[in-house]
Amino acid sequence: MTTAAIPNGAPSIDDVVASHASLRARRPLVQALTNTVSTNFVANVLLSAGASPAMVDNPEEAGLFAGIADAVLINLGTPTAAQVESMRLAAAAAQKAGKPWVLDPIAAGGLPWRGAVAAELLGFRPAVVRGNASEIIGLAGLGGGARGVDSSADPAAAVPAAVDLLAHAAAVSASGPVDHVVGRVDGRTVLLKIAGGSALLPRVTATGCSLGALVAAYAAVARDPLTGLVAAHVHFSAAAELAEAQAKHPGSFAVAFIDALDAVNETVLRERAKIAVVAVEQ
Amino acid sequence: MTTAAIPNGAPSIDDVVASHASLRARRPLVQALTNTVSTNFVANVLLSAGASPAMVDNPEEAGLFAGIADAVLINLGTPTAAQVESMRLAAAAAQKAGKPWVLDPIAAGGLPWRGAVAAELLGFRPAVVRGNASEIIGLAGLGGGARGVDSSADPAAAVPAAVDLLAHAAAVSASGPVDHVVGRVDGRTVLLKIAGGSALLPRVTATGCSLGALVAAYAAVARDPLTGLVAAHVHFSAAAELAEAQAKHPGSFAVAFIDALDAVNETVLRERAKIAVVAVEQ
Amino acid sequence: MTTAAIPNGAPSIDDVVASHASLRARRPLVQALTNTVSTNFVANVLLSAGASPAMVDNPEEAGLFAGIADAVLINLGTPTAAQVESMRLAAAAAQKAGKPWVLDPIAAGGLPWRGAVAAELLGFRPAVVRGNASEIIGLAGLGGGARGVDSSADPAAAVPAAVDLLAHAAAVSASGPVDHVVGRVDGRTVLLKIAGGSALLPRVTATGCSLGALVAAYAAVARDPLTGLVAAHVHFSAAAELAEAQAKHPGSFAVAFIDALDAVNETVLRERAKIAVVAVEQ
Repeated sequence: MTTAAIPNGAPSIDDVVASHASLRARRPLVQALTNTVSTNFVANVLLSAGASPAMVDNPEEAGLFAGIADAVLINLGTPTAAQVESMRLAAAAAQKAGKPWVLDPIAAGGLPWRGAVAAELLGFRPAVVRGNASEIIGLAGLGGGARGVDSSADPAAAVPAAVDLLAHAAAVSASGPVDHVVGRVDGRTVLLKIAGGSALLPRVTATGCSLGALVAAYAAVARDPLTGLVAAHVHFSAAAELAEAQAKHPGSFAVAFIDALDAVNETVLRERAKIAVVAVEQ
Repeated sequence: MTTAAIPNGAPSIDDVVASHASLRARRPLVQALTNTVSTNFVANVLLSAGASPAMVDNPEEAGLFAGIADAVLINLGTPTAAQVESMRLAAAAAQKAGKPWVLDPIAAGGLPWRGAVAAELLGFRPAVVRGNASEIIGLAGLGGGARGVDSSADPAAAVPAAVDLLAHAAAVSASGPVDHVVGRVDGRTVLLKIAGGSALLPRVTATGCSLGALVAAYAAVARDPLTGLVAAHVHFSAAAELAEAQAKHPGSFAVAFIDALDAVNETVLRERAKIAVVAVEQ
Repeated sequence: MTTAAIPNGAPSIDDVVASHASLRARRPLVQALTNTVSTNFVANVLLSAGASPAMVDNPEEAGLFAGIADAVLINLGTPTAAQVESMRLAAAAAQKAGKPWVLDPIAAGGLPWRGAVAAELLGFRPAVVRGNASEIIGLAGLGGGARGVDSSADPAAAVPAAVDLLAHAAAVSASGPVDHVVGRVDGRTVLLKIAGGSALLPRVTATGCSLGALVAAYAAVARDPLTGLVAAHVHFSAAAELAEAQAKHPGSFAVAFIDALDAVNETVLRERAKIAVVAVEQ
């Protein structure tokens, strides 16, 4: 990977602010097919940030509802056979209706059954794939790339895998101490590094899952998936910083974080955003 | 709709206070068949308010348990085929055993599959139907009434639909900024408007679901379903007001609300209750 | 039951402290097959206490994952047919791989369908059975013992049933105001009474479930299941005491409790532990 000139159209803090204003104005309806650990927290994150959640995930209704929702989250945390069928139907319906959908491929690289599901779902062209570094590397390996599962927690190590996944999705992020986001701008591959957040985030369950849901909400309102993905990461990290200023342990941090998602406004976004843009030649 | 003289037997604040005392003394066991987003919050609302929750919702045990529980909540938020079978069994068993059960018809008017389930469940004679205005209007449409789905959020607009549903249930409420409750007293249809609550309630997921569960708890201990329904709304709204006095954002509001459900006592109920009674001629 | 000399090897506060240090150092991965009410809370309890949760509970992956995890929790709160199949696979895989697993037999004595499941699962030799007094008595009755279901909430009454269950598990606890733990040391049956905790614990849903998960975490790192069981109870009770010092109602108590699980350290353990050891002749 070598760096090149940064395209003019890469997402900026102004784009983040505009996306946030659009989120608050439009309150997009996000259909979340997610794991049993995360449903409540995901819904509260969406509500507090400014979106509207609906967890319709049975095969009888999931496809229909994807045509009603503004965006869809598919999270592979605790899939059942019936939920997987719903995921196929929702992803297909979202693709057909031109609605953005987000794939969160939890543990897809390490567990063959869900790995096959994740690989199949990529065929429905998610707008965004979001995961931690290991999951992005694992999913890229399933997708036919040369890289296998890697338990490394360093998002920088996941950038080549994330770029590989741009064959299937418009934008990809690997979360971590510094989030790494890749997409295409003016035909060139762009890497954005988003710093900030809090070391307490991974001490609260389902925070990553809720970031995936927030990405779906932003994908429904931003000018393009890459911009929405960046805006979601910046909003999320800023809220985590506000929460960390008020709480030292995971229980009170989780409460303060939900509060902070609501409290984030343009001023906070401009003060807290730490976005670095790097062009990537492959 | 025109108003008429108010029957003497309409639920009063004294009835609310008596129902609350009975709730605390008896700690009714509420079987909740509810959506995956709400299970934890519903259980904590019941525990803090003074009831005892049990979420037995598999087909193997749901009918048996309805005979053990003091009341049953059936909430259509995220139904699966197996859970729907459990709902049929629990509703039938509750009806047979004379136990009150509450139907919360989430999105029943907008999604045909669950709409058919809701219409079928009405045949098991719920003691109470509780929903937001759109859900009450939608369910009444499914039940054979003339009114279809209406996305209006104004509970006043749902009163005719709520009155239609009295063909199936003893009492019906449409929640909103002012909750609208209908039932029959001395053969006459009565509308009660319950003001108060908090604008933060709809910013926390599953608050409506948890109100449905609290209604089931009160239906088990109050002198009749209408009184229990009114008491649950008053307890809930009073707690929301206490919580709003302590919290400005959804995360801390949710925590303060659970605390406040415990803190509500006779004094708080008498200070906070805002009940207006209107007799309705159809 | 008569008392006898206490074996030298019974778990001590030093063993609890060593187990806690090992938990923090190793962050064991706990696979939790648990009820829908508890998933989020169980995961947050594990994360805050110092372990790592994973809720893989589908039949396609549960057995495989039990070979990856360091310990397994099986909780019968809201079993479905598919989850029960997963429980069989996970318990069998854990037994085969020599991984400790914990059975939390919620309501097994009162509901025949899950009672049969619980009795079958005992055949896979859990390291620990943990429940409230009624559940331990009920499970022992199912296991072929002479004692039937008893709704008594007094853990002391469950000691004979707990001792019976030592035919199937290395250690057993009955939770309550004073937790009663039994196991074998140097061939003798030992009863440990662990006092402390908080009256607010049963006012928050899934606290018992989360204790079961913490037991699994400790079973993965302690020198033996009995020591891990005692350490989990002491950690849990100490955290509850810290939380109660900060909160008077269930909502804020739950948040403070999660915080306190993180805050518990060697000093807190030594200050708060209230362990009494009694040898038991059967």
